[in-house]
Order: sequence, then C-alpha cells, then structure tokens
Amino acid sequence: MKPYKIGIDLGGTNIKAGVVDADNHILVKLSCPTGAQRPWKEVADDIVRLALQALEQAGVSREDCAGVGMGCPGTVNAETGEVIYSNNFANWEYLPLGSYLTESLGMPVKMSNDANCAALGECAAGAAQGSASAVLLTLGTGVGGGVVWDGKVFEGGPGGMELGHTMLISEGEPCTCGRRGCVEAYCSATALIREAVRAARARPDSLLNTLCRGDLSQMDGKIPFDAAQAGDAAAGAVVERYLRHLGEAVVDMVNIFRPQVVLLSGGVCAQGEVLTAPLTEYVRRYAFASPHLAPPPVRIAMLGSDAGLIGAGCLVDCR
Amino acid sequence: MKPYKIGIDLGGTNIKAGVVDADNHILVKLSCPTGAQRPWKEVADDIVRLALQALEQAGVSREDCAGVGMGCPGTVNAETGEVIYSNNFANWEYLPLGSYLTESLGMPVKMSNDANCAALGECAAGAAQGSASAVLLTLGTGVGGGVVWDGKVFEGGPGGMELGHTMLISEGEPCTCGRRGCVEAYCSATALIREAVRAARARPDSLLNTLCRGDLSQMDGKIPFDAAQAGDAAAGAVVERYLRHLGEAVVDMVNIFRPQVVLLSGGVCAQGEVLTAPLTEYVRRYAFASPHLAPPPVRIAMLGSDAGLIGAGCLVDCR
Repeated sequence: MKPYKIGIDLGGTNIKAGVVDADNHILVKLSCPTGAQRPWKEVADDIVRLALQALEQAGVSREDCAGVGMGCPGTVNAETGEVIYSNNFANWEYLPLGSYLTESLGMPVKMSNDANCAALGECAAGAAQGSASAVLLTLGTGVGGGVVWDGKVFEGGPGGMELGHTMLISEGEPCTCGRRGCVEAYCSATALIREAVRAARARPDSLLNTLCRGDLSQMDGKIPFDAAQAGDAAAGAVVERYLRHLGEAVVDMVNIFRPQVVLLSGGVCAQGEVLTAPLTEYVRRYAFASPHLAPPPVRIAMLGSDAGLIGAGCLVDCR
Repeated sequence: MKPYKIGIDLGGTNIKAGVVDADNHILVKLSCPTGAQRPWKEVADDIVRLALQALEQAGVSREDCAGVGMGCPGTVNAETGEVIYSNNFANWEYLPLGSYLTESLGMPVKMSNDANCAALGECAAGAAQGSASAVLLTLGTGVGGGVVWDGKVFEGGPGGMELGHTMLISEGEPCTCGRRGCVEAYCSATALIREAVRAARARPDSLLNTLCRGDLSQMDGKIPFDAAQAGDAAAGAVVERYLRHLGEAVVDMVNIFRPQVVLLSGGVCAQGEVLTAPLTEYVRRYAFASPHLAPPPVRIAMLGSDAGLIGAGCLVDCR
C-alpha cells in the first residue's frame, strides 16, 4: 500500500496543499491565494502546481503517493467530482473539477465538501480520534456540517449534506439559502453578531457598546461572551439565546444520527468550555431517549485549519 | 441462497408475521394481539409461535428460510437486537429480545425500528421501488422516520434515528419527547387534529364544527381537509399551515440526506395529491441548491401495513 497522500483544502481565499503520511501527520504544507474570480481552470492549474510542489518538498515520489483528496466549499458531487455550485467562486457551476485534476495530476482525485473533510480529519487525528462516527458543525460566516460514519464520510446524495440548512424557527430570520429560520440563521457567527448588535442598539448602556468603542460595525463573536462574562445583562441574554439555539441544533443532529461525538469548529469555539459545558448538559437533558441512551459529548475541534487538509488526504483511503 | 424469509411487524396492538419470497411478495400473513401489558417473554413466545406457523402455512421448510427480520417500535439497538426502550409496551427497557428470538427460533434474527422497516419495504416493493435511497416520514399519532441508503437501512448509532424529533419551532408546542417544537408536534395527525380543534373553537361558525356534529372529540385528520376543500376559511388556514410545516420538515430531510425519493405514510396520506403536489413544489422551491440540483419527488407510500412486514423480511438480506 502506498503510504502517502496529498490533501488539498480549496478555500475562497487560499488553496492549501499538504502531504499526509500514514499516521495522518502533515509532512509539508503549502498555500497560495485562490484568486476566486479567475477562470476555474487557472485555479485548477494552481492546485496541480501546489500539489506537485508539496510532494517534491516532502521528498515523496509519485509512486509512493496513493492519490489526492480535496475538500471544496459548496455543493459537490462526491461521486463524479463535479462542483455543482459554489458561491465562493465566480460562476462555478457544473465544473468537472475532479476529472480535470485527475487527468492533470495523473493520480486518482477524490472530492468532498470541506466540512466533511474537516470532520474526517478530526476523526483521524483530532478531537474525535478513535470515534467511528461524528457530526461536525462549523460555526463561521455560515454553518456547515460534516458527518463521519463507520470511519468514512457520509456524503448523502449528490450535493451532500447541508446540516446548517435545517430549520430551527419556522418563519424566523432570513437565511442565505432563501428559507427563513435555518440553523445557519441562528448559530453562525454572523447570527451571533447580528443579535449582539441588536442588543447593543436596544440597550445603549450595555457593555456591548463599550467593547465596540461605540462602533457597532466592530462587533465580533467574542465581544458578547466577554460582556456576558463581565456580568452585562443584555450580552448575557444574547449568549444564552445563542447557546440554546446551538443546543437545539446539536440535539437535532444527535436525534438524527446518534454519533459517538459532536464536534464544533469555527472562531466562536475559542470559548471552549463556555460552549461545550452547557451544550453537553443540554444534550443530556433533551436528546431523545436520553435517560436510556448515553448522549454523546460535545467537543471543540482541535486541528484548526489542518483538519480539512488531513481529512482531504484521508478521503483517498476512506472511500 | 435460501429464497424465503420471515418478516415480523411488532406493533403495540398486533403482532404480524409473514413469509416473504425472493420477489418480496408476502406468501402468508398471520397476526395476533400483542397484549402489550404482558411480561415481554410471553410476547416473544407469541412471536415465535406466529413465525413458525406462518412458515408452516406457506409450506416453506426451515432449510429454505434465510432468517427472520423484525420491525419494532421504539428505540432499538439494531446491532445487538436489544430493545432499549419502547413506550408502546409495559416496562420494556433493555430487553435482549433479538437474542431471545434467535435462540427460540433457531434462526438468525435481525431487528430495526418499524419505520426503517417500512422505508425498506417501500424501496423493495413499493413507492420507492428501484430507488437506492429514500427517506420515509410516518405521520401518525407521532412522527417516525426511516432512511434507506444504498439499498440498506441507515440505522445511525445505537437507538436509531428519530426524524420526528428535530426542531421546527424553537420553544413551540410541547412534544412527547420532552422538548418543544419538534416536527412531531406540528406534522403528526395528533398535531393536525389539535390545530383543527383550536380553529373550530375559535370559529364556531366553521364547517369544522359541523363536520364533527358539534362534538370536537370526534375531530380527525380528514375533517380539516374536507372542510378546506368545501371552502371553509378556518379549515383552509389549518391545512395550509400543516402543509407548510410538513414542507419544512421534508426540506430539512432533503437538505440533510439528498435522497432520491421522499415518502410519506399514515392516515393523513389518504389525501394523496392534495399533500404531494404542494409538497413537491415546496421542496423544488426551498431545498438547498435547488436550482442546481434536481430535488426529489414527494410520494405517498403504497404498501400500507405490508411495508413493515416486507421491509422486516428484507433486513435479512440487506445487512
């Protein structure tokens, strides 16, 4: 068996490529700007260049490389390697990216959604190491999700899973997907910031305003937690509501999948136990049949941006 | 390969056992009352008796029977055959039902949740025949769900999937699971009846009252549709809201799994196209990436109570 694989994390800002060994360690990691507005083949050619460069720098021969895995934002057909749609890129629709890369690299290329890769990476070498199943929710500008089952990505049908686009509040806040009330509209960092700004406006005396130095465009996902920690009531209410909605989303995932672990990633996760302690308790309390079935722990992902790279590499072995 | 299998559908009211052939036809079907308040071994012994009786009546020898599959309400560990909890039975907790039946019958026994079996049955011989993936929502007293993936039941982790216990409205109507606002609290027949009763009370002039002959305890899941059809505004609003919530639940399932088909079963489904036409349109409009990905059709399950029996039989081959 060939011991190495190339993992690629294609993002809207940067392309990252790395060589991953059999123990899921990254030997070499390179990156370059994506240039997401360029024609897709230019981006693809940069991926090829970066992948081969990483292989060379790692001193790994093509013969020792089992293949290439790539995580891609947006809607991907994992079976065909087609990017169906990705709003991170200009006019990326129905692109045969997988087959183009396979041909250019002369190696098998497997693709999945970037959140799936992150979940797989965390199972291989991170916060869910040793678990055969996990659900990961990525809390960023939006809410993404990845599911690992029996040690592999569970892709769902063509287009993959959109765990952030399940409902929390019928007819609630508008969501980027065109519906209202999705998990993304309540549990993303964007949603947290939106609620913090609203609370700051409603309560001019709140610490939320002070910590923004009076400029609400400076609100971020940390300020509401800081202000709540300092005893600010308005911020406390924002954080409490955010945690409750996140708990609801996590319980939904537990009731659907019954994974061994639930993972959270994204900037908000810097809060650590402030997040995981109440969420684990919420899951214990509300997961279906929880008195009879031990509910899974909620943990913070630990590999950061390496999760996607390692997980992408793992796609090569895992499917 | 042994051509026959025994399918068992264990319900709170009746035990059904059938012999299913290689083409998923039921050769013989028997049933007896469950007597759900009895000690579990008495129920188990009746299952054994009924299964062997069905085999005999079908003229199938033990040697030609590949095994036994059973659908069971409640929380089942499909891997171990343990019934973790089922509120349809008195004190059914952590019962080694699968191993007891395996020993008593002298044949391998596979178990799953009853909704999973129904989904598998519909894929094998019903409304999703030919589809490798399907999500079934059962709209009854509660809302259950089953998922078929790659022609097999997707079990999720121990305890199985509870698709009816995902959220639609945070802090909404109380749900039987202890949370508020679950799909079950809006999309079950029980929920439809609750809303129809409320509308009838609020609008004494509504046809909803007339069709109940003034006795709201007679409300059922058909009356609101009949009244809406006849132009009653209060009933129309109830039906419209019910369909919207059902659409939201279906889109959630589509966004998570991307199945080839979504199936609905239960008494409400007698409405046929009145249900499926607006739901298919709702999915087309709101499923994630729907302009780019053809959304799945929404269909009514067609095997009725045979679905569970056939699907239970299919467990024998399919896992």
